[in-house]
Amino acid sequence: MTHRIAVAAVDVGGTKTACGLFLATGELIHSRTEPTAGESAESAAGQIVAMAEAAISEAPVDAVVAGMGIVVPGWVNRASRTVWAPNIKGWDHVPLERQLAERLPIPIFLESDRTGYVKGEAWLGVARGLTDVVFLAVGTGIGAGVLSEGRFLHGHDDLAGCVGWLALNPRYEEIYARIGCFEAEASGNSMGRKGAERLRTAQGGQPASIAARDVIEAASNGNPAAAAIIDEVSVYLGMGVANLVSTLNPQMVVLGGGLFQGGTRLLERVRHEFARWAQPIAARSVRIELSTLGEHAGLYGAARIALDNI
Amino acid sequence: MTHRIAVAAVDVGGTKTACGLFLATGELIHSRTEPTAGESAESAAGQIVAMAEAAISEAPVDAVVAGMGIVVPGWVNRASRTVWAPNIKGWDHVPLERQLAERLPIPIFLESDRTGYVKGEAWLGVARGLTDVVFLAVGTGIGAGVLSEGRFLHGHDDLAGCVGWLALNPRYEEIYARIGCFEAEASGNSMGRKGAERLRTAQGGQPASIAARDVIEAASNGNPAAAAIIDEVSVYLGMGVANLVSTLNPQMVVLGGGLFQGGTRLLERVRHEFARWAQPIAARSVRIELSTLGEHAGLYGAARIALDNI
Repeated sequence: MTHRIAVAAVDVGGTKTACGLFLATGELIHSRTEPTAGESAESAAGQIVAMAEAAISEAPVDAVVAGMGIVVPGWVNRASRTVWAPNIKGWDHVPLERQLAERLPIPIFLESDRTGYVKGEAWLGVARGLTDVVFLAVGTGIGAGVLSEGRFLHGHDDLAGCVGWLALNPRYEEIYARIGCFEAEASGNSMGRKGAERLRTAQGGQPASIAARDVIEAASNGNPAAAAIIDEVSVYLGMGVANLVSTLNPQMVVLGGGLFQGGTRLLERVRHEFARWAQPIAARSVRIELSTLGEHAGLYGAARIALDNI
Repeated sequence: MTHRIAVAAVDVGGTKTACGLFLATGELIHSRTEPTAGESAESAAGQIVAMAEAAISEAPVDAVVAGMGIVVPGWVNRASRTVWAPNIKGWDHVPLERQLAERLPIPIFLESDRTGYVKGEAWLGVARGLTDVVFLAVGTGIGAGVLSEGRFLHGHDDLAGCVGWLALNPRYEEIYARIGCFEAEASGNSMGRKGAERLRTAQGGQPASIAARDVIEAASNGNPAAAAIIDEVSVYLGMGVANLVSTLNPQMVVLGGGLFQGGTRLLERVRHEFARWAQPIAARSVRIELSTLGEHAGLYGAARIALDNI
């Protein structure tokens, strides 16, 4: 009897953790999402083991689960195989790959979520089959995963793609030192912060808390201060995309993360801005597209990472 | 009798062309530089053939010249093996590799000068033995060559490293459309242009023509307008280096090209500025150094390209 190959996949997020079981063909045969048990390093690891065991038990009788890919929201040091993740308590250079391997009966392959996003989209998303792809994630923060000639660009310390730190404005502001210029100007959090600073409520006071989607909605309703924020953020997003295109000359830039889940209006603004700044020949040859896997990009990527390594 | 391996190397520049003969150990046993015969595609190709034949004839009797690397100041399309180079008349998608192969008795390997610079420095220059290196050339224009895990980053259309187009200032200026923002703000030519626009002579008139070195000298002599130009250019250079570090996480950024041949003062300014902008962990782990091969980086790189391919 011949067996089909299956892999387990885990995408650990700051708030949610997803686990799936995939056939090597890309067919997703089981998936489950839970709030991340991020109270401690041990609770997070225990949750991963339990979710993985449940996923493995869903394998068809003719399938062999040959490995598990796991992506995490932080810095994966490939030399020490450790994880540093600011959103999960105690994941401070934790040897997660080894810890999981001791508790699960299959090989474990650990990468950053940025690796997962771009590998997922290049496998079964909008960048399917492409070899030179940048995934730009714009949500709470900003980061990128880069495929070049089919290989993920890790950088020497596994920090390539920390593009929230792109310098885009020579007039230095204090906040740049903390989160980087691009992230301070154009992340979803920063759009909300700009909204809180600049949008007045009908009563003339400042709204207590504003999210990026509130700014986008206010702009749609004709609020000029909100529209000015969208204009400003669009320029920075266009500049950031342009810099990735001029430096890396990819076939496609995939835009993902919370800020781009509202639809295609922001996409059109970014496409328009980016074309003013990027190297012209590289700009004409690249496509700028929204993620089609959306919040599942990391899970698909984790499966692809397992398949690439088994 | 065993033979030593030798390779020929040619670095075609916009004004000068250099040719050398190297042993595989890196020993340079012959070199010659001439003004580039750039009047036509044919004159440039003929010059390369003549210089290569002369170099090959210098090989020791126990050496076999196993191939020739050639680097050119333009866009090398690896699919069509053609060259587009704005500074050499008629090099408008010319099949140079094939033309040379028909006239020379050894295999020919063609790459861009940016490829040569970074491969030369990583072979026998300041980045000797490193695998993750960016060479940033700042002269007439601005461009970069990137080694990542020992492989040159070509990009999908062989345009990776066109970093003269980095977007660094959200206040768009017309000149950015023609040469790119970074190049418009920080190349040697642009420093000269800023000098011509802003420096008054002692007589109160504007000097007719100013080179970057005149601005640097005026700043050293206490001219405040010149010092302000150096300040401004240093900020942009620091931002550009920072963006390469945050995106690519290299071990070293090598600074080369005419603007950095004046010594270490500009280097110190760039190091200082860069550290304010780059991803902090990547910034602490990278070294920012001047090219040690200087104007020979391309020639050494051409030899390395030949050795990598034979």
